[in-house]
Amino acid sequence: MTSSRPLLHTFLDAMSDLLGDRFSTAHAVREHHGRDESLYDPVLPDAVAYAHSVDEISAILGLCHAHRVPVIPYGSGSSLEGHLLAVHGGISLDVSAMVQVVSFQPEDMSITVQPGITRKALNDYLRASGLFFPIDPGADASIGGMCATRASGTNAVRYGTMRENVLGLTAVLIDGQVLHTGSRAKKSSAGYDLTRLLIGSEGTLGVISEVTLKLHPQPEAISAAVCSFGSVQSAVQTVIETIQMGIPVARAELVDALAIQALNRHFKLALHESPTLFLEFHGNAASVAEQAETVQGLADGNGGTGFQWATQQEERNRLWSARHNALFAFLQLKPGCRALSTDVCVPLSKLAECVVGAEADLRQSYLPAPIFGHVGDGNFHVCLLLDPDNPEELVEAERLNHAIVQRALQAGGTCTGEHGVGLHKIDFLVQEHGQVAIDTMRAIKQALDPHGLMNPGKIFRRLDSSQTFGNA
Amino acid sequence: MTSSRPLLHTFLDAMSDLLGDRFSTAHAVREHHGRDESLYDPVLPDAVAYAHSVDEISAILGLCHAHRVPVIPYGSGSSLEGHLLAVHGGISLDVSAMVQVVSFQPEDMSITVQPGITRKALNDYLRASGLFFPIDPGADASIGGMCATRASGTNAVRYGTMRENVLGLTAVLIDGQVLHTGSRAKKSSAGYDLTRLLIGSEGTLGVISEVTLKLHPQPEAISAAVCSFGSVQSAVQTVIETIQMGIPVARAELVDALAIQALNRHFKLALHESPTLFLEFHGNAASVAEQAETVQGLADGNGGTGFQWATQQEERNRLWSARHNALFAFLQLKPGCRALSTDVCVPLSKLAECVVGAEADLRQSYLPAPIFGHVGDGNFHVCLLLDPDNPEELVEAERLNHAIVQRALQAGGTCTGEHGVGLHKIDFLVQEHGQVAIDTMRAIKQALDPHGLMNPGKIFRRLDSSQTFGNA
Repeated sequence: MTSSRPLLHTFLDAMSDLLGDRFSTAHAVREHHGRDESLYDPVLPDAVAYAHSVDEISAILGLCHAHRVPVIPYGSGSSLEGHLLAVHGGISLDVSAMVQVVSFQPEDMSITVQPGITRKALNDYLRASGLFFPIDPGADASIGGMCATRASGTNAVRYGTMRENVLGLTAVLIDGQVLHTGSRAKKSSAGYDLTRLLIGSEGTLGVISEVTLKLHPQPEAISAAVCSFGSVQSAVQTVIETIQMGIPVARAELVDALAIQALNRHFKLALHESPTLFLEFHGNAASVAEQAETVQGLADGNGGTGFQWATQQEERNRLWSARHNALFAFLQLKPGCRALSTDVCVPLSKLAECVVGAEADLRQSYLPAPIFGHVGDGNFHVCLLLDPDNPEELVEAERLNHAIVQRALQAGGTCTGEHGVGLHKIDFLVQEHGQVAIDTMRAIKQALDPHGLMNPGKIFRRLDSSQTFGNA
Repeated sequence: MTSSRPLLHTFLDAMSDLLGDRFSTAHAVREHHGRDESLYDPVLPDAVAYAHSVDEISAILGLCHAHRVPVIPYGSGSSLEGHLLAVHGGISLDVSAMVQVVSFQPEDMSITVQPGITRKALNDYLRASGLFFPIDPGADASIGGMCATRASGTNAVRYGTMRENVLGLTAVLIDGQVLHTGSRAKKSSAGYDLTRLLIGSEGTLGVISEVTLKLHPQPEAISAAVCSFGSVQSAVQTVIETIQMGIPVARAELVDALAIQALNRHFKLALHESPTLFLEFHGNAASVAEQAETVQGLADGNGGTGFQWATQQEERNRLWSARHNALFAFLQLKPGCRALSTDVCVPLSKLAECVVGAEADLRQSYLPAPIFGHVGDGNFHVCLLLDPDNPEELVEAERLNHAIVQRALQAGGTCTGEHGVGLHKIDFLVQEHGQVAIDTMRAIKQALDPHGLMNPGKIFRRLDSSQTFGNA
């Protein structure tokens, strides 16, 4: 399955000299680093290195380069697509201890952080400043990992994704050279956009070692609501009309009837068990009130009922905590199950037909699968619940995933809105972009990492391998 | 100066066979294509090819590749940095006749266009749809060219730049292969961000031949204003406070006292000749009114006076047409002059000190130089007016440009906010990003264009050349 060679003593000794007890070949440590939140069985790295600085990352990569040892950057371990599995061996480079704020420029609404800081820790740091960082994937992911997968979340409809919210970054290349991209200016036309090239590169081009983020003012007023609909179409139609009117909705999340059922059971709620929108509006008092009123009107026009509003933080938290912790509720629908989450994103005009199509697929299947998603962006997840010890259920889940992705690609969409490609969507990527695009990506990979050492086997298979991972 | 070889008859014949009279070696045609809006003397291409389709672009590049002939993509000719000069010979590939709308998806607020369509023609097409495309560089540039230079303009503070407003594109690589990037979905984590790599690549990686743009709803209400200040600092401070409060100002343009003087003279206006902000707010009636009121309060606190408001389209057009046509007014300040425009962009907190520093530099100089800019983004232009026939004045202008760029780089900013690098900022680019970044860009260039045929000598010098252009 892997083409890795055992690590040489010269390499092991040099790494130990560099890092002392922060370099480990202990099985438990490797086991922890050879897995993520995907359904793949762990594939252990040969060793784990814990870096504390850009200089250490550079020294580690220099050694890996000299000894031709693959490197897998590791942040919080919350990837969903097998990004962290050592399918070609090598070391896991753990930056989770690099959690410092390097510099904070409140007047510029920007901050430079180390890659291991998580989004929640960052927002804790920012709380008193009047600023916040809006990107919120489901997990409390590290900022470096969120860059690597081009993460987004519930606020992306208003604030954009990691693509729009990174001003610049520092990355260490495989030969140990330290690359600085971007600047602290809001925009620039100065050469190739290396920042955007690294965002979404999934650790295959370099190790993200510092990130300068764009921050946003904490909204003066926030209003949140839930609203039930007779069908997924009418819920989605409400969101489409909201976006088309230019209403700067901050969050627009769809949760289907089965998902609401799971939330009701797990969180002891009494929501109407039908397709539901969770909405949030940010702004000043007047604009929030006007946005909310307008959207309520649109929802009424689409048969929305049972509007519940929350403007106080406590009520909002109650309303949203169920949505944010939905996965735990879903897992209770089937004891002992694990989840395979689809991640397609489609043009808004195709969203209703894609969700309805997925619903139809699911009606033909025995797997329970709540649907939820960031419908303001056209992104939705089908949470396929399966028994990890039953190979047939995995096959069935992959069959459904395949059907949902095919429909999204037909609709001009993408196989992944926010989770990345990893091991799981390698073939979908070829189908989505075509061979010329894949060859172009590979040419860039080859130019920056000629020996194929940076997280090999992710996004595309290593050229010289008989890698068996991937969705083929 | 150039390392070009004469074109071979086999190439000329093949091109004529392909394009008929749309392939020309006439001097007048070459002369028209060997220049742009920069101060550089023209450097003529050896021939000009007019393409009408993606297939033709592909065929043309295939021939250029086979015969090792450089190619310079040509849109509207409005570049400011020497992008179009044939410093290594080769052909100019004119796509200005490719002005079709390929497909329009109003419900998705997206449109796919050919690269030659200009921003004004696009907005004429969109007028009745309720949608618009906000990116507005000074010139009526082509969409392909705006992608190539990562253009922005006055609306970028609210709507972003070309970086944020392109969903995907088609580009033809030097060997004639057709590359499709992105999708019609609003976001994606599917592999390397080739869209963003091509945006800002200045024709050096491929020929942009189709673009899918993100559109925005025409605002329900618009309000515009001008306001005078006692100093550049207090005007800039007003904008900083506006942004920090999260007010979604649509335009925030600074025009200095000399620039106002020029506008008054040329357009027969009676604006107070002091640093002035031109502001615009987009939204619904309530939010526009509230934004305007808040910003007026901030301006008052910074000593702003003489607020003039315009909410009707006619008044707004009168107010803004002077700003939009400022360059014509500036050129009247010095008969027979031409303009060298700086383009630095800095973090907002450094903007006042950078503008004040530029003012101090200019007070020591004999060149008249109005200052204006997109201060909501930290981007400003010093319009250095010089006699093109007087080499000393060019040296003086470059000296001032150099000082202004150095101050911007010291402040953590960029040498170019929206014009691009072209020939003029090659050395500034190295200083801004460092050699590792330049080497990384070159490695990508080499991977995608191994013979250095795509717009060679722009962004960085061609490795094998003794090119004398650039700001060294």
